[in-house]
Amino acid sequence: MSTDATGAARVLSGNDASSDVKEELKKRVEALGQKLPGFRPGLAIVQVGGREDSNVYIRMKLKNAEAIGINATHVKLPRSATEVEVLLKLNELNQDPNIHGIIVQMPPDSEHYINPHTITDAVNPEKDVDGLHTMNEGHVATGDLETGFLPCTPNGVMELIKRTGVKIAGSDAVVLGRSKIVGTPMSELLKWHHATVTVCHSKTKDLEQKAAAADILVVAIGRAEMVKESWIKPGAVVIDCGINSIDDPTKKSGKRLVGDVDYKGAAKRASWITPVPGGVGPMTVIMLMRNTVLAAEKMLERLLQPKWNLR
Amino acid sequence: MSTDATGAARVLSGNDASSDVKEELKKRVEALGQKLPGFRPGLAIVQVGGREDSNVYIRMKLKNAEAIGINATHVKLPRSATEVEVLLKLNELNQDPNIHGIIVQMPPDSEHYINPHTITDAVNPEKDVDGLHTMNEGHVATGDLETGFLPCTPNGVMELIKRTGVKIAGSDAVVLGRSKIVGTPMSELLKWHHATVTVCHSKTKDLEQKAAAADILVVAIGRAEMVKESWIKPGAVVIDCGINSIDDPTKKSGKRLVGDVDYKGAAKRASWITPVPGGVGPMTVIMLMRNTVLAAEKMLERLLQPKWNLR
Ligand SMILES: NC(=O)C1=CN([C@@H]2O[C@H](COP(=O)(O)OP(=O)(O)OC[C@H]3O[C@@H](n4cnc5c(N)ncnc54)[C@H](OP(=O)(O)O)[C@@H]3O)[C@@H](O)[C@H]2O)C=CC1
Ligand SMILES: NC(=O)C1=CN([C@@H]2O[C@H](COP(=O)(O)OP(=O)(O)OC[C@H]3O[C@@H](n4cnc5c(N)ncnc54)[C@H](OP(=O)(O)O)[C@@H]3O)[C@@H](O)[C@H]2O)C=CC1
Repeated sequence: MSTDATGAARVLSGNDASSDVKEELKKRVEALGQKLPGFRPGLAIVQVGGREDSNVYIRMKLKNAEAIGINATHVKLPRSATEVEVLLKLNELNQDPNIHGIIVQMPPDSEHYINPHTITDAVNPEKDVDGLHTMNEGHVATGDLETGFLPCTPNGVMELIKRTGVKIAGSDAVVLGRSKIVGTPMSELLKWHHATVTVCHSKTKDLEQKAAAADILVVAIGRAEMVKESWIKPGAVVIDCGINSIDDPTKKSGKRLVGDVDYKGAAKRASWITPVPGGVGPMTVIMLMRNTVLAAEKMLERLLQPKWNLR
Repeated sequence: MSTDATGAARVLSGNDASSDVKEELKKRVEALGQKLPGFRPGLAIVQVGGREDSNVYIRMKLKNAEAIGINATHVKLPRSATEVEVLLKLNELNQDPNIHGIIVQMPPDSEHYINPHTITDAVNPEKDVDGLHTMNEGHVATGDLETGFLPCTPNGVMELIKRTGVKIAGSDAVVLGRSKIVGTPMSELLKWHHATVTVCHSKTKDLEQKAAAADILVVAIGRAEMVKESWIKPGAVVIDCGINSIDDPTKKSGKRLVGDVDYKGAAKRASWITPVPGGVGPMTVIMLMRNTVLAAEKMLERLLQPKWNLR
């Protein structure tokens, strides 16, 4: 966390934060192996087809898993796979005692229509380390943050906000975006950390004015650099979930990644701000790892419980 | 819907609105009986113990069911009932083909500790006409308003707001309260009707100022007449979910019911306001009836489906 040259804001680094979590997870995996020799958390990453962006995300997940000691398996299904075939595969993984976490890389890349909700809800909620099963969503919505798994991106954002030391309870938080995987669970987590939360979306009027009232502003709209300096309340914590690829002729690839926030402008007013890349992105991956380790810990606990305990 | 003598606001009557829904439901029940002679929606109301307030609510539900043609059964369990006994009873009702809707009157009045979440989640989601199962909560949170059942009080409030003709999409809505049964699903329904929603609770700062920014203000905090005239934006729609009994020596009972809003004061500024009693209360009951009819309709549809349709 360093002071950024372009403005007053301190940089809220997801690289730093995720490294810290990684070290913690290595220790937890080691402890599991000591409790039951040979035991390692198992993660299945199911991919339908072969989208290039999905390949990149999956490689990153495999690399992180390996570094932590998680046994990750890349389960590839062909583009010809139907929804029923994906469901059969998930059923098999749900039964597999060596698999503690299951994710399906979205979007599926199939020749057939595959309903993402059907897929997500076919993962056993106890193995749903993406936290996207409707049961897990219901838990988060009603403030039960213990029973299930928290969705990775919002959970990573909470970790980042906590690292600033800013008081969340009683603060005014504004979330731009209400998607199932980012905006909606984000607003719920902030609410149950006792912020007063306003959720904005494409139908919101006076968006700038609403953003400018936020002590904590989380942006997840998928619009390159839309949030400008004037949208930021002086001293606010600004979290940018956006990942947008824009043209940049100065780069070899001709492309550059930017967030949903105009970083240089916003950094002049914010107290803390996440960069893109290196902000929310690495937190999402590491929270997936943490959920997987947690799933394995819970499973081992059940395994080692006295057999006569029927509840 | 009449103009109220105490102020400018029009009265948003739950009595009127629920009568209209009642007539609609009678017709739907009749249509069911025509599709399958003798078929009637079946509702089980499970009560543990005998709290006086619960008795009153249950009588009201039974009366409404009767008027509509719903076969309602009052399933009484003694105060000595344990959680396991309640779960066994629910399991029996889940299996019963003549029961399409099941509710457990809360709070249970037992000598033993009974976890309300365990109970609510033991009702088959397809019979959960209270809309309180975690699966149903998850559906509402993520904007799937079709698959499950919507919780009764927030759903009744939406009906009332729709009757005003005020445009919900793009409006600024503020919900005071974040409980599992009222505040949280209320804010979700408003969000998925495309309002920009701010959720307030006991940790919120500047509560009055936040309320005063609302085009649509829904209050569910359980604090007698806490919301005053100055909290209301001129022209706002004000929905009062509160049911509070306060002392009133002028009444025979020595008591009087009031909402969470100071009605007379707020009515001076609001465009529409719900009275207490006769506002949200009757809507909650009638939405339970509507969910029960819907559950029966869905069941009958499944029954009458060609048998070779395996999905
Ligand atoms: N760092 C990470 O690991 C991850 C990053 N992301 C990134 O986060 C961003 C959001 O992702 P996701 O939530 O999946 O995206 P979605 O497209 O699913 O949702 C975008 C949300 O933003 C709202 N929105 C879109 N345009 C506007 C606008 N002009 N004004 C106000 N609101 C608007 C939409 O409103 P409405 O609902 O009305 O359409 C919607 O709720 C993307 O850039 C994505 O790449 C996503 C997941 C993980
Ligand atoms: N009409 C009907 O059919 C029904 C009516 N009701 C009525 O609605 C009201 C709310 O019920 P319910 O949601 O179950 O109640 P709960 O007690 O479960 O929740 C109350 C909510 O209000 C918040 N709150 C309490 N005091 C304050 C305050 N001073 N300032 C700001 N927020 C506050 C609480 O915040 P926090 O979370 O921080 O504690 C909580 O979120 C009650 O009057 C109840 O009788 C309820 C159900 C049905």
